[in-house]
Amino acid sequence: MRSFLPPVRTLMGPGPSDVHPRILEALARPTIGHLDPQFVRMMDELKSLIQYGFQTKNELTIPVSAPGSAGMQTCFDNLVEPGDKVLVCQNGVFGGRMIENVVRAGGEVVIVEDPWGKPVDPQKVKDALKANSDIKLVAMVHAETSTGVESDVTEISKLAHSHGALLIVDAVTSLGGIPVLVDEWNVDAIYSGSQKCLSCTPGLSPVSFSDEAVARLKSRKTKVNSWFLDLSLVMGYWGEGAKRTYHHTAPVNPLYALHEAYVILKEEGLENAWARHKKNHLALRAGLEAMGLEFVVDEKYRLPQLNAVSIPEGVDDAAIRSTLLNDYSLEIGAGLGVFAGKVWRIGLMGHASSRKNVLFCLSALETVLSKVKAPISKGAAVDKAAAVYNA
Amino acid sequence: MRSFLPPVRTLMGPGPSDVHPRILEALARPTIGHLDPQFVRMMDELKSLIQYGFQTKNELTIPVSAPGSAGMQTCFDNLVEPGDKVLVCQNGVFGGRMIENVVRAGGEVVIVEDPWGKPVDPQKVKDALKANSDIKLVAMVHAETSTGVESDVTEISKLAHSHGALLIVDAVTSLGGIPVLVDEWNVDAIYSGSQKCLSCTPGLSPVSFSDEAVARLKSRKTKVNSWFLDLSLVMGYWGEGAKRTYHHTAPVNPLYALHEAYVILKEEGLENAWARHKKNHLALRAGLEAMGLEFVVDEKYRLPQLNAVSIPEGVDDAAIRSTLLNDYSLEIGAGLGVFAGKVWRIGLMGHASSRKNVLFCLSALETVLSKVKAPISKGAAVDKAAAVYNA
Repeated sequence: MRSFLPPVRTLMGPGPSDVHPRILEALARPTIGHLDPQFVRMMDELKSLIQYGFQTKNELTIPVSAPGSAGMQTCFDNLVEPGDKVLVCQNGVFGGRMIENVVRAGGEVVIVEDPWGKPVDPQKVKDALKANSDIKLVAMVHAETSTGVESDVTEISKLAHSHGALLIVDAVTSLGGIPVLVDEWNVDAIYSGSQKCLSCTPGLSPVSFSDEAVARLKSRKTKVNSWFLDLSLVMGYWGEGAKRTYHHTAPVNPLYALHEAYVILKEEGLENAWARHKKNHLALRAGLEAMGLEFVVDEKYRLPQLNAVSIPEGVDDAAIRSTLLNDYSLEIGAGLGVFAGKVWRIGLMGHASSRKNVLFCLSALETVLSKVKAPISKGAAVDKAAAVYNA
Repeated sequence: MRSFLPPVRTLMGPGPSDVHPRILEALARPTIGHLDPQFVRMMDELKSLIQYGFQTKNELTIPVSAPGSAGMQTCFDNLVEPGDKVLVCQNGVFGGRMIENVVRAGGEVVIVEDPWGKPVDPQKVKDALKANSDIKLVAMVHAETSTGVESDVTEISKLAHSHGALLIVDAVTSLGGIPVLVDEWNVDAIYSGSQKCLSCTPGLSPVSFSDEAVARLKSRKTKVNSWFLDLSLVMGYWGEGAKRTYHHTAPVNPLYALHEAYVILKEEGLENAWARHKKNHLALRAGLEAMGLEFVVDEKYRLPQLNAVSIPEGVDDAAIRSTLLNDYSLEIGAGLGVFAGKVWRIGLMGHASSRKNVLFCLSALETVLSKVKAPISKGAAVDKAAAVYNA
């Protein structure tokens, strides 16, 4: 058994995305103790960086020591008590996962369903709230990673709050790629993932809880299901000042990496990062459309960082992705759930959202596709993308 | 806000321990997708390496994507159903945490208590089993990180199984430092941590479940509390062959590191690693005793990798640890729980279990202690330790 030496890939799937070399370097820095004063100082900086990313002053803003799925569970486990009625907006895979989380926390689910590839319909949420006066929580996915659609958080937030409910938002794929304005939007609990538009390695989940959410957590009548994710305990470790109570051993090196990812984001500035994601999306889109590929999501709701396109009739999904991986070391995403075999998901997330990747992906995809399907116009994809950059 | 550049420490606390440079290097290798065929190949290797570490053929042997505490919760969440009666042996902090996990999984706890610094008493377990015919699970800590004591798994395992109960074992601090023989000892569920005697960075928890444990998991009447830790779902991702079902995004780079840690362990060989831990412990012990420091745990039950000694009367715990950290960049562990302020825990775990660290720690500690307490015999600590190596 020998050391594992991974190949060098270009990661343009739904995440992990290409990791910035500075982040890999940070990951390999010397490990120190999780209660070391220097580590505690880093934790304080990281909390304030996560606040910047979420655009929030929420005191309870920390990275959960596990992947985004655990961030999701942290929100539900801490805010749902047995018997609580929770409205979940489902328009893709991750809404479905939210339902599972509510059920396991002992809650009762009211589902508002929208088709895959469509945003959450506020009218349906309004109706469901009207029909269920005892809903305590509303949960929605801001950027559905399975479909590439953005839903409007502000509308749903107003509806939830006017109903006296709190709002949980999944920002796994949105954070860093498009605006995520926790305070302005009045979001009560939000989670993201390290491996999408933050371009960090997978394994951590930044979360933030509003004061109202903390109040609800503190007034719980029952213990949180999960000891590991119980924020009333985790807070003792991530709390203010020098006094930190040991809860679990923090993933020291991955936290260095997350810190570095946020430092890079702050150096660029959120607005510039959003503009970069937009620009590269427009270039990629021009190229994909020049190849005759069609977007799944209406322009208005399209995520710049996750481009879902229909696989053309007669094209072998797995064969194309395999060729891209084996001959170009390029990963694009397969379809998930009802989109399996029907859709490709091309990510332009964080460090992977670059002119280099757009042009590389378009030329590779055009070359590979043209072997099974005559190109509309050879070289047009790259030309169209270049035109966007030169405009 | 700038990059965080941690100091270089010598980590001789209760973990994280000094990380082998090859592991840090592995951590920084290029990130690839969590469904990449090359990654899947690495996962298969890692499973077999974890089996080697645990000395088991258990098919369900995987790393949980979160720290040891989540590994603990994985065992309890998957094996405890509401109303199940669980016997927990408590002789330190981590037995207490097990109780919390049982309660949150809806189980009923029967506690067998032993004093801090003493091993679990099999007679008490026998009596408790006799008094509670409906106990379905017995849980114990093999190596109590809070006290440095080893308990005999074989005895408790026989008692549990003759009663028809399954056995959960905490091997967070034992794995790699002393024998952990899952199949020979007939352990049904076991978890460890990456950051102790494996010398990997913190954040991952190798676990293994026997066929009997898997059968119980499969025959559950209720869903597992935690979606993230539900092994019936996680197994779909870590299962055999090329078909892997997406569950959560695996922490790709930390898994490279864990793989490397196990490759290093296998290169050395388990028996040699155990012998090395023993030898360095004997040398450290000779030095500490030459300084007049007394071990908390009886010789028979002492863990070589975690040396708990009483803080001498009149010595300021925090001041000594601070001086060691600031002037020597050396971390030793504070006491936890009832041992806070009374005990130091000196770790000799994995890569940190070396002649260099033993001699460095003894000379630093003697120098610092001699400022507040006249040494019994100057230089004796290092001499005594050196004699052990030269014997």
